[in-house]
Amino acid sequence: MTVKELGLLAKNASYKLASLNETAKNDALYAMADALVENAASVLYANSLDLAAGKEKGLPDSLLDRLMLNEKRIADMADGLRQVASLPDPVGETVSMWTRPNGLQIGQRRVPLGTIGVIYEARPNVTCDAAGLCLKSGNAVVLRGGSEAIRSNIAIVKALKAGIAHVDFPADAIQLIEDTDHQSANDLMSLHGILDVLIPRGGAGLIRSVVEHSKVPVIETGTGNCHVYVDQFADFDMAVSIVYNSKTSRVSVCNSAESLLVHSRIAKEFLPLCAKKLAEKNVELRGCPETMKILPHITPATEEDYYKEYNDYIMSVKIVDSLEEAIAHINKYNTKHSETIVTSDYQSAQQFLKDVDAAAVYVNASTRFTDGEEFGFGAEIGISNQKLHARGPIGLKQLTTIKYIIYGNGQLR
Amino acid sequence: MTVKELGLLAKNASYKLASLNETAKNDALYAMADALVENAASVLYANSLDLAAGKEKGLPDSLLDRLMLNEKRIADMADGLRQVASLPDPVGETVSMWTRPNGLQIGQRRVPLGTIGVIYEARPNVTCDAAGLCLKSGNAVVLRGGSEAIRSNIAIVKALKAGIAHVDFPADAIQLIEDTDHQSANDLMSLHGILDVLIPRGGAGLIRSVVEHSKVPVIETGTGNCHVYVDQFADFDMAVSIVYNSKTSRVSVCNSAESLLVHSRIAKEFLPLCAKKLAEKNVELRGCPETMKILPHITPATEEDYYKEYNDYIMSVKIVDSLEEAIAHINKYNTKHSETIVTSDYQSAQQFLKDVDAAAVYVNASTRFTDGEEFGFGAEIGISNQKLHARGPIGLKQLTTIKYIIYGNGQLR
Repeated sequence: MTVKELGLLAKNASYKLASLNETAKNDALYAMADALVENAASVLYANSLDLAAGKEKGLPDSLLDRLMLNEKRIADMADGLRQVASLPDPVGETVSMWTRPNGLQIGQRRVPLGTIGVIYEARPNVTCDAAGLCLKSGNAVVLRGGSEAIRSNIAIVKALKAGIAHVDFPADAIQLIEDTDHQSANDLMSLHGILDVLIPRGGAGLIRSVVEHSKVPVIETGTGNCHVYVDQFADFDMAVSIVYNSKTSRVSVCNSAESLLVHSRIAKEFLPLCAKKLAEKNVELRGCPETMKILPHITPATEEDYYKEYNDYIMSVKIVDSLEEAIAHINKYNTKHSETIVTSDYQSAQQFLKDVDAAAVYVNASTRFTDGEEFGFGAEIGISNQKLHARGPIGLKQLTTIKYIIYGNGQLR
Repeated sequence: MTVKELGLLAKNASYKLASLNETAKNDALYAMADALVENAASVLYANSLDLAAGKEKGLPDSLLDRLMLNEKRIADMADGLRQVASLPDPVGETVSMWTRPNGLQIGQRRVPLGTIGVIYEARPNVTCDAAGLCLKSGNAVVLRGGSEAIRSNIAIVKALKAGIAHVDFPADAIQLIEDTDHQSANDLMSLHGILDVLIPRGGAGLIRSVVEHSKVPVIETGTGNCHVYVDQFADFDMAVSIVYNSKTSRVSVCNSAESLLVHSRIAKEFLPLCAKKLAEKNVELRGCPETMKILPHITPATEEDYYKEYNDYIMSVKIVDSLEEAIAHINKYNTKHSETIVTSDYQSAQQFLKDVDAAAVYVNASTRFTDGEEFGFGAEIGISNQKLHARGPIGLKQLTTIKYIIYGNGQLR
């Protein structure tokens, strides 16, 4: 089948899916979870073929690790589906309703987006996670994973569909594109009018390419060049822990910090303390000329550095003379993801919250909290750093839209 | 200046604009309105040059009419700005706020989108309307109108900027692209990272081209292939008036009806009544074979007809055997804009509201109400028929996004 035909199957199924109640959707998710565990052997066998092919192709170990499944990881995927089933269904909520002077009652009802495309790379668990979130929010899903994981993905989707077959659920609501060549990605990106949104999950290259080429509306996820700004009125202990946690608790993720800004009034005292703590994890600091005067043994930062999402034990450092300079620096170099100020000053806190342009702006907390689970959404399909539709963690609610429902009694215009 | 340079000027101004309070924005809007009236003579002179050039180029009368300004139209534009000033400012609202088990207080604060591109055709009033709505919602705006109106647009923007010069407001927040060649549109569509959204206003060709080529997120506005479904349990008088009003009250707009669906049980009685009323405005009906048996003198409808937005005194007619068939027909052929059912049956009304996929779904009212003013939004920049971000009328609130503001006291993850 062509990508367009798969898309149309999903789109047709989306109408039935949109009108299912929560129990029916949860039954399907539980059935999918059970079927995944029951079919673990065939998923693991398919995965072993992917791994063997990956090794032969010389894929790096980090990628092979992301690709690798075992009993535990399959059980986690199944648990993820059950957890999504336990989350409240956002569909059907009346967001607001009002009556116009002519008597029309106008309401905003939360409804599924319709059909969602997800394009991703080597992690086979995305197949299961994305399917679970899309189906629970009443959306059909067209999945297009990377070639490295294609055998695993086929086996996973086969298991999920086997589960669905036991319950009253439109089986076509999950589609996997089995061609993993460049053309199939392009075909997916051209399904304007069939897909309602396309969500890329993966590295910067994938996301750039989707933004560049998609004719379908995209929710851009991804890069986080996040800053910690230590204000002149900061508690040093708190500031050191927040910098250390934001930078080092998990360097590979988008909500980890990449850049440290320090007010010039406290830099001389604070920076050595902070550098000492970061040295516990061998964090490489790259500093501005003023920083170099205080920490002469670190690497000088280039203009490039301030734009970088290192995803590594590296951090750029800049000394600023004011809160305004810190905010201007952040708004210039950041990727609109997560930014935090450490301060005990009321006015600085409020101004930072007001003027920093990012999905999540923190006072006195680690940037690492920008996450669907940490925000209380239960789960997420990614973190949006665009401003349209969904900003920040994309949970079930962000996978819905509204329609206006209007009750009249013969009104004419 | 290049389009990119204009975009960067607007983007820089957007930070200042985002932090202005409502009074400052209203002062600017009133000053713009006054300056527009004061500079009416130069705007009218520029417009006369556009009109002369248009006539020489042989532009059709309908287009020349849209292009034409006079004292009254300029006064209307100024009044539009004053009306926008009188609307409540959506920026700064805390949409919701909650506390996490770890003590983090997480809130969603409504903020401007940032920088909005608007690409449009011959109507010079869009220059003023779009600028007013974008600025009131705290957004900088980059305007790119059609070549036919370029002299008028330059004069209008000059007047608006003269008004702004009197108040404390970032003058760069309004930018007009004076090059109207194809390249300038392409340049605008490539400003990913500078523009936060691009809104096309105009005909289907313009919108298709923007959707096709833009690397900036687009809010798609436009086509409305709207249906009236007359259920077997409809009040005939109400049904005839709703069909008549939906079709004929203004045929050129996107919320007018293009297609009539009638339940087979009542078709024989209802269709002649309805056809008689529509004949008052010489509406041409194009019917399915069953319709032709009842109204033998009308034109047969082709498959093509059911997809058409006529924007004219033409209406396709189809007889359906059930509510389900009506809903399936609508979901197949519609453009997700506005759909209405006329019925006195509770269950049919609820099912229609639930299962029809459109921005606005009505019971017993004309489709013509899908409009920012009619919905109570005060004004609109267009009507979205995509599902992402804004669905239906795009008022001030739809020109904003949220950011998460998080109050902590040292939380680490």
